[in-house]
Amino acid sequence: MKTRRAILLGRFQPFHNGHLKVIKKILAEQDELIVAIGSAQNSHTTENPFTAGERIMMITKALDSEKVPRSRIYTITMPDVNNNALWVAQVRSNSPPFDAVYSGNPLVQQLFKEAGYEVKIPPMINRVDYAGTEIRKKMLAGEEWETSVPASVVKVIKEIKGIERLKTVSQKE
Amino acid sequence: MKTRRAILLGRFQPFHNGHLKVIKKILAEQDELIVAIGSAQNSHTTENPFTAGERIMMITKALDSEKVPRSRIYTITMPDVNNNALWVAQVRSNSPPFDAVYSGNPLVQQLFKEAGYEVKIPPMINRVDYAGTEIRKKMLAGEEWETSVPASVVKVIKEIKGIERLKTVSQKE
Amino acid sequence: MKTRRAILLGRFQPFHNGHLKVIKKILAEQDELIVAIGSAQNSHTTENPFTAGERIMMITKALDSEKVPRSRIYTITMPDVNNNALWVAQVRSNSPPFDAVYSGNPLVQQLFKEAGYEVKIPPMINRVDYAGTEIRKKMLAGEEWETSVPASVVKVIKEIKGIERLKTVSQKE
Amino acid sequence: MKTRRAILLGRFQPFHNGHLKVIKKILAEQDELIVAIGSAQNSHTTENPFTAGERIMMITKALDSEKVPRSRIYTITMPDVNNNALWVAQVRSNSPPFDAVYSGNPLVQQLFKEAGYEVKIPPMINRVDYAGTEIRKKMLAGEEWETSVPASVVKVIKEIKGIERLKTVSQKE
Amino acid sequence: MKTRRAILLGRFQPFHNGHLKVIKKILAEQDELIVAIGSAQNSHTTENPFTAGERIMMITKALDSEKVPRSRIYTITMPDVNNNALWVAQVRSNSPPFDAVYSGNPLVQQLFKEAGYEVKIPPMINRVDYAGTEIRKKMLAGEEWETSVPASVVKVIKEIKGIERLKTVSQKE
Amino acid sequence: MKTRRAILLGRFQPFHNGHLKVIKKILAEQDELIVAIGSAQNSHTTENPFTAGERIMMITKALDSEKVPRSRIYTITMPDVNNNALWVAQVRSNSPPFDAVYSGNPLVQQLFKEAGYEVKIPPMINRVDYAGTEIRKKMLAGEEWETSVPASVVKVIKEIKGIERLKTVSQKE
Repeated sequence: MKTRRAILLGRFQPFHNGHLKVIKKILAEQDELIVAIGSAQNSHTTENPFTAGERIMMITKALDSEKVPRSRIYTITMPDVNNNALWVAQVRSNSPPFDAVYSGNPLVQQLFKEAGYEVKIPPMINRVDYAGTEIRKKMLAGEEWETSVPASVVKVIKEIKGIERLKTVSQKE
Repeated sequence: MKTRRAILLGRFQPFHNGHLKVIKKILAEQDELIVAIGSAQNSHTTENPFTAGERIMMITKALDSEKVPRSRIYTITMPDVNNNALWVAQVRSNSPPFDAVYSGNPLVQQLFKEAGYEVKIPPMINRVDYAGTEIRKKMLAGEEWETSVPASVVKVIKEIKGIERLKTVSQKE
Repeated sequence: MKTRRAILLGRFQPFHNGHLKVIKKILAEQDELIVAIGSAQNSHTTENPFTAGERIMMITKALDSEKVPRSRIYTITMPDVNNNALWVAQVRSNSPPFDAVYSGNPLVQQLFKEAGYEVKIPPMINRVDYAGTEIRKKMLAGEEWETSVPASVVKVIKEIKGIERLKTVSQKE
Repeated sequence: MKTRRAILLGRFQPFHNGHLKVIKKILAEQDELIVAIGSAQNSHTTENPFTAGERIMMITKALDSEKVPRSRIYTITMPDVNNNALWVAQVRSNSPPFDAVYSGNPLVQQLFKEAGYEVKIPPMINRVDYAGTEIRKKMLAGEEWETSVPASVVKVIKEIKGIERLKTVSQKE
Repeated sequence: MKTRRAILLGRFQPFHNGHLKVIKKILAEQDELIVAIGSAQNSHTTENPFTAGERIMMITKALDSEKVPRSRIYTITMPDVNNNALWVAQVRSNSPPFDAVYSGNPLVQQLFKEAGYEVKIPPMINRVDYAGTEIRKKMLAGEEWETSVPASVVKVIKEIKGIERLKTVSQKE
Repeated sequence: MKTRRAILLGRFQPFHNGHLKVIKKILAEQDELIVAIGSAQNSHTTENPFTAGERIMMITKALDSEKVPRSRIYTITMPDVNNNALWVAQVRSNSPPFDAVYSGNPLVQQLFKEAGYEVKIPPMINRVDYAGTEIRKKMLAGEEWETSVPASVVKVIKEIKGIERLKTVSQKE
């Protein structure tokens, strides 16, 4: 029987509990899932504080500690291309083949729909608690952010002194 | 006698009646006109919904249906360069030679002026009715936009489901 | 009835009689033809002496003087991408839509075949007389090259002092 | 105890039995191994016939069928940078952290050595039988290549019609 | 004795009296100073009106007229990289070696700190009078800006008609 | 009186006695000289072993030890552009203004000539003894190369372990 394989595109800045729930739900419908880390070339900014390598670590450690079998997951990294019309080709050439696409991003949805893919909205998640933007705001404000991400992700962020980095790069000159 | 050949630079998102009038007026002064499609690498965004190829189709079909002789027109595509100081060289190397430059964009005017070109402001057009920004706003708001562009452009946009695309990519995540 | 539209990909360094014959033959089978100038970013080298703009002039003037109706022809320019897997998407986004692809280049043939396009080998042409490589060799050796290209192309090359340029850039430091 | 994590850099065009042996030997010395697919942007050439995504599939399926625990392996993709002095920074930002570097490539060895890394030559492998160059030559010549790669890799290559692709793109125009 | 050599990173749009004071103060602590012109690829915008070459001229002429020995100064140009994680490697490969880094930019401070460099905040300068942003605002508003920059910089800007350029490129289309 | 300022373009891999003689001769004819380090992005290869920063050091130290007044010299770095037609614009925007161009490279000569510059062949130098290619060959062969470059350049190369680097990166995999 053909392997059902889907791709989930996100920036994962940082990887949080909402992402984890989405992945678990998708794995209930699919055999394998490609987790594609978008804007991979970005780091050290307010919107994108963490490098692609750091995000791989967050995702991997969270899946391990949550007993999500890593053999059903591929993590890949996707730098932005400066031409939206090339995006689907860029993803396809850097990824194992897939049939379904999960993304909350309207541009990504449109591009894959035009290319003939089945596009799925990731299962509904409480976006107030889990949006990356909210979590980064809490990090900057010194508010409680640790409960919004898996414990293993807290550990990665602390090891790389991620909060200090985020605060510094968010300062005005 | 030397051919008088000018270049008109624009983004043509979309090509509209204002552009058509400008081209007709320029052709009264020039033998040939190069229509240069700027920001050619951009598409699928709120500001730049259409690909360079789609814009070529809009321009070509509008000129044909308006009996503008295509033999007097060249359409070329110009991706942005990330260095303004290279822009004139980029245009010159990708275009048939030209003496006069028509552009409403102050940066383009400045760059060509510094390079020693004759820069002309395109003939006055009612910008309220014809500005691309206004037309894209109407497309998004579900208002009447079809009267602002040639009928042949309406047809191209409908065939590629351009309004649906513009609405999707303009959504917030 | 749907317009039959094909694309012909080449470097056209320079545009020669072989290209002209191919275009005429294709136009007997198709309604419109897109002439795509590849490696558009290259110029001033032994392999690619002429700029994209100069090649547009050669093609346009040759078609005009040969009474090929320019209204059936689109010329577009294609810079190389550094990723073959993006090539078809790059061409599609910068070109009017097309159904058939004509190219003598095995890589181009393979890429479009994998993307599901009908790929046609351009009608057989005497490659000894018409290959661009041979013509550039003659230009360098001071041999007769003018009979291999349309008279209008000879004129363009002379106006831009193309032979002098080719000879200079082919010198060893 | 700190995880011992190393990186192995290669192009894996294709992934072959030599690579598999090297990975097994490294895993005897390290806890985890990052398999970095270099020249990730290249495909459809004689030297680099397979896309990064296809190479991920080859590696993953070979490790699975050989019972190498995928939870100890990370596969990442590394496009070339056009500046050797940026290479180590590029790898570091796209990879989980690592202490040791395995590579047979003298340039890679030199760059990581200058950056202060421990560089190890991958364990000796019979290069006559296992070099990628040799395997691609056999593919082109129609000779037996299937015994040089894991059976699961043969299957991937056949599914994507890899031999046909390699033969086509290796033709002269 | 080892030469103490530091680097000062800025955009110098334009080079002003504040920069000059900073350089003089740094030279009291260091043997040599590398003045690195950032965002070197930018010009002809409201934020970055002057080319890298024009900024070299401003810096050089100001140092000369202020009797700062040019033999203790290196000017280098640094185009932006689209990946912050590569920035330090980019600077290092294009610059004479240095031990200390002076920058008022929090991102630059963070990147060099993560790379293990000593990062120094440039000596306190009255930012109201000397900030580049303020000076460009005055240029646009037709207010007195000449007293904020060395007389030799005024001369460079007038020769290149810099105020006219800034005003033109700051216009809305 | 207007400053006579010229530019000398080279790769300086490494800076050698021939370069030094050329600079001295040019300074007899010109007030100031811009020494432009080409292919600045290349390093760690057989053809381009040294980084742009290392080459700045070689040039600066050689000029200092030879009592060439550094106040008459500008060193700038020029990464390659992948489009020859943009080269002159790239050089102009990154350099102080100049009237005359010195280069032994036929492509550079042609590009500047087409742009209307006065192009001068650098004063005749014994190319057998001073060509960079020859010096790199000697470095690789373990032959005497030190007499072909200024003593201060020998010192720079030894400090960065340049010979060891060149030998390593020139090995076959």
